[in-house]
Amino acid sequence: MSVVRNQLEPGAYCDSIILMRLRGALEDLPGILEAGAVMATETNLSLLAESGLLLESAADRRPDDLLVAVRAESEAAATAALEKLPTLLRRRGGGEESAEYRPKSLAVAVRQLPAARWVLVSVPGRFAARVAREALLLDRNVFLYSDNVELTEEVELKRLAEERGLLVMGPDCGTAIVGGVGLGFANRVRRGAIGLVGASGTGLQAITAAIHAQGGGVSQALGTGGRDLSVEVGGSTALAALSLLVADEQTEVIVLISKPPAPSVASALLSMARGCGKPVVVCFLGSPPPALEIDNLNFAHNLQDAAQLALAMVEVATYDFHFHKAPLGEPLPGFLRGLFAGGTLAQEAVLSLGDWLSPLRSNVALDPSMRLEEPENSQGHCIVDLGADELTVGRLHPMIDQELRLRRIEREAADPQVGLILLDVVLGDGAHADPAAQLAPAITAALARDGLEIVVLVVGTDEDPQDLASQVERLEAAGATVFRRPSGAWDHVRARLAALPSNGGVGARPADLAAPLAAINIGVESFYDSLVAQDDPMTSTQSPKVTALHVEWRPPAGGDARMMAILDKLRSS
Amino acid sequence: MSVVRNQLEPGAYCDSIILMRLRGALEDLPGILEAGAVMATETNLSLLAESGLLLESAADRRPDDLLVAVRAESEAAATAALEKLPTLLRRRGGGEESAEYRPKSLAVAVRQLPAARWVLVSVPGRFAARVAREALLLDRNVFLYSDNVELTEEVELKRLAEERGLLVMGPDCGTAIVGGVGLGFANRVRRGAIGLVGASGTGLQAITAAIHAQGGGVSQALGTGGRDLSVEVGGSTALAALSLLVADEQTEVIVLISKPPAPSVASALLSMARGCGKPVVVCFLGSPPPALEIDNLNFAHNLQDAAQLALAMVEVATYDFHFHKAPLGEPLPGFLRGLFAGGTLAQEAVLSLGDWLSPLRSNVALDPSMRLEEPENSQGHCIVDLGADELTVGRLHPMIDQELRLRRIEREAADPQVGLILLDVVLGDGAHADPAAQLAPAITAALARDGLEIVVLVVGTDEDPQDLASQVERLEAAGATVFRRPSGAWDHVRARLAALPSNGGVGARPADLAAPLAAINIGVESFYDSLVAQDDPMTSTQSPKVTALHVEWRPPAGGDARMMAILDKLRSS
Repeated sequence: MSVVRNQLEPGAYCDSIILMRLRGALEDLPGILEAGAVMATETNLSLLAESGLLLESAADRRPDDLLVAVRAESEAAATAALEKLPTLLRRRGGGEESAEYRPKSLAVAVRQLPAARWVLVSVPGRFAARVAREALLLDRNVFLYSDNVELTEEVELKRLAEERGLLVMGPDCGTAIVGGVGLGFANRVRRGAIGLVGASGTGLQAITAAIHAQGGGVSQALGTGGRDLSVEVGGSTALAALSLLVADEQTEVIVLISKPPAPSVASALLSMARGCGKPVVVCFLGSPPPALEIDNLNFAHNLQDAAQLALAMVEVATYDFHFHKAPLGEPLPGFLRGLFAGGTLAQEAVLSLGDWLSPLRSNVALDPSMRLEEPENSQGHCIVDLGADELTVGRLHPMIDQELRLRRIEREAADPQVGLILLDVVLGDGAHADPAAQLAPAITAALARDGLEIVVLVVGTDEDPQDLASQVERLEAAGATVFRRPSGAWDHVRARLAALPSNGGVGARPADLAAPLAAINIGVESFYDSLVAQDDPMTSTQSPKVTALHVEWRPPAGGDARMMAILDKLRSS
Repeated sequence: MSVVRNQLEPGAYCDSIILMRLRGALEDLPGILEAGAVMATETNLSLLAESGLLLESAADRRPDDLLVAVRAESEAAATAALEKLPTLLRRRGGGEESAEYRPKSLAVAVRQLPAARWVLVSVPGRFAARVAREALLLDRNVFLYSDNVELTEEVELKRLAEERGLLVMGPDCGTAIVGGVGLGFANRVRRGAIGLVGASGTGLQAITAAIHAQGGGVSQALGTGGRDLSVEVGGSTALAALSLLVADEQTEVIVLISKPPAPSVASALLSMARGCGKPVVVCFLGSPPPALEIDNLNFAHNLQDAAQLALAMVEVATYDFHFHKAPLGEPLPGFLRGLFAGGTLAQEAVLSLGDWLSPLRSNVALDPSMRLEEPENSQGHCIVDLGADELTVGRLHPMIDQELRLRRIEREAADPQVGLILLDVVLGDGAHADPAAQLAPAITAALARDGLEIVVLVVGTDEDPQDLASQVERLEAAGATVFRRPSGAWDHVRARLAALPSNGGVGARPADLAAPLAAINIGVESFYDSLVAQDDPMTSTQSPKVTALHVEWRPPAGGDARMMAILDKLRSS
């Protein structure tokens, strides 16, 4: 019989890394079975409640409060653990005090490292705008990782950046590569001639990783945040980033990637791109490309395609356009459950699979009717972006903290209606140091249930700190089917789950299409004339054999609606 | 001083061809300056009013009534013309009584030509379902050209067709090629190995014409009508048509074209296509292709691309993927006014130009915010489908009757804000016998105004009855710039009207991207760790030079919102 205890520390702000480490430290204490340490937001509380870690007594908590919960073998163990809390909380930054002196404010930091042209901001959303503003006023460019920043704040920050000739990447900017260095989440890639601007974190990561895998390199990768291309923000960062890449000597080809922009913003962005003098690959995921190419613009279908096009343009790889006919396997019964850390990867999965697994719901669906209203609860075929704003308040992004996903894998596996779980694992700097260490056991446990398949898309490079080969090996050993290219994963899921092609039951008669044709025309007389004319060797070199007849039709009852109704009644009776 | 006279013939139903001919016959009478002959629908009355041909006295008219209007040089000429009306109305079918015996009902027609497996129905919308039902009950397939048919009627008709193993193409089906014979509007094309199914009339015409132009041929082209892929209709015709093409021995490659289908319908259609054993080119205009190819499915960007893909697959032409950089000209000031007869051509123009001419309004815009609410009145950049249901009640399609468009060209040319008028001319059986004869003078007259350009897209083949070469020659002689491929026309319009690329005014500093990088981190500490790790030759073969500093940040005022507000106030004062 286990014991659950909660402890509330009012106003004790902790950043999410600290919370994750605190949870780990508590779970390492003797007699502790499970622990939770969260800022007391509604989502976090409901997640605690779901694990049975929340007590009613912990009422009246505010989002600023730290809530610690333990499930212990005994009352004594629980008490002992909670008594250690003050010590654990003091032991910040990975368990030991940092030796070097650390500034407590941005102003001091800038004096200490005046060469720093970039400030990375990842404090909780409600504090983020204030910190970013301070950085801009100190004449620094900002990489704003924080999410849950108000739209009005974003607009103000970007206006200020424009005035001062600075760049604000974000808010909710997951990744960037500046001068060869990855900021936030980034894969380690060769330096090279391809520069990228993206409103999408994992999208940029997937493309840069693909470029590296095929021998290409990246000059810069600049993020904009997901709302930059809205009417309100007007593409401020995207336009500034694009102009930076145009001026950047190392950049020979530019890749522009985002969800569909507002029309006025697309127009401004494409105008600038079209006049920039460098080839540009445009990938507006979810928006139909207007053409294969327009002037110097080349439109890509998807992430993989964007990488291929860019590589072809710097002549590192050829653009391989081929027709293939893959065999179809017997489909797996059951639902797809996609549990994604990467928002753009989730988005691309929805776009690629939505036409096949119908309905396919998602919290990132562009079609409002396909919206998954409660991303905490799966429904039919669905794809959940676990990094969405609403799920990350007061907790770390799922690319760092896998707890939410591990628990969800367990839950989905327990649902007998689920046939396939689809996961992404994004490697690189900033991401979890060893995702396979946690995922592999969870995958093995889940696959203990018959009739379940787990597919993992791994985005990473051979230079990434996590050791790509070992990650793949351990995931495969656990029983997962692993793919390195997004489209490979989508193809596999489609082949496994999409309804078997049907070709029966539709009964029109093929013989009715055979020549020679005979037809009756009723209505516009010129259509009859055209039929007859086609049989005339004088006007037609084709001259197929046609027999046609025109009906001299007049509306029944002279077109009188009341009389027509009476006639219909007489006929049917 | 001219005289206007109206005459109402209550309940005198006339089909639209008769009306068009009646108008022509009246205008040929001595002393008649202008004439109108319309079924008295609201749209038609307002068009008459616009030309100053409607008198107040013609009140109380119903849509079933025939309204004849003349503007004459004198009272006597007007009276004389209207007195001829009964004679003119009797002279049906092109001015002389047909010599052959013509059945007055479908049942008689079927007895007379029992070999006819197809019935072409183009009676006015409110009668159309009744005629189509009769044809199905007589065990005949239906080509249903009529528009303004109720959705519930369409569903009923298609259910009946399914039960009886028949095909209903339409309602609002503009074109088909069955057994080598064009039904409705159709270009004359070589017979060949490419079979098409399309929810789009001019889309099918543009693709079949392009296939023919490049040496390919068409086995069958089956229309479905624009609503077939809605949830309500469920793709009934498209599925049946697809299964016909699968069974059709002459068809080696299938092209499937439509506007974006409902997700459940797309799923059914693509499932069938994927299992059909033949290569299929899919072109869902306005919907992002999920990939370049999925199994045997190949996704096209646009009409031209669909034709190219199909041709490549039957090895008639190579699929040419190339990068080009076209020079940019000085843009023309002024608005685009697209006046289209072809709905799908209008749609593709919107999709191709919408990102560049912003806002671009249209009565066929997929984006509700870009909807042109009153297609009778232009607004900014806009594209009008003059063949849309709401504009064709009681009058012929603009591919046959050009009156509406001729008048509109005159009006747009008179607007000094208009810089470019874009027109389509669709040739082939069923279409106007000589569109250039009317359009060329209208174009010459419009171009009398300085600063106006007129671009014409001509869709047709060298086999079409109108003589393609002569059409193009006369349109060009009138001063129009003529294109034969849709994308050629869109490219030209884009180059002429899209805002000049701007590249100034965005002020972020290129030097800030240069290596070595120095950065300050504030928030998630692991991002700092990642920065430092990238500078470590032990963990990174890239090892760029990075200098980084982490700020030991705590929320101001312990995160207390009220205190933070006070601090902000103090600071700003």
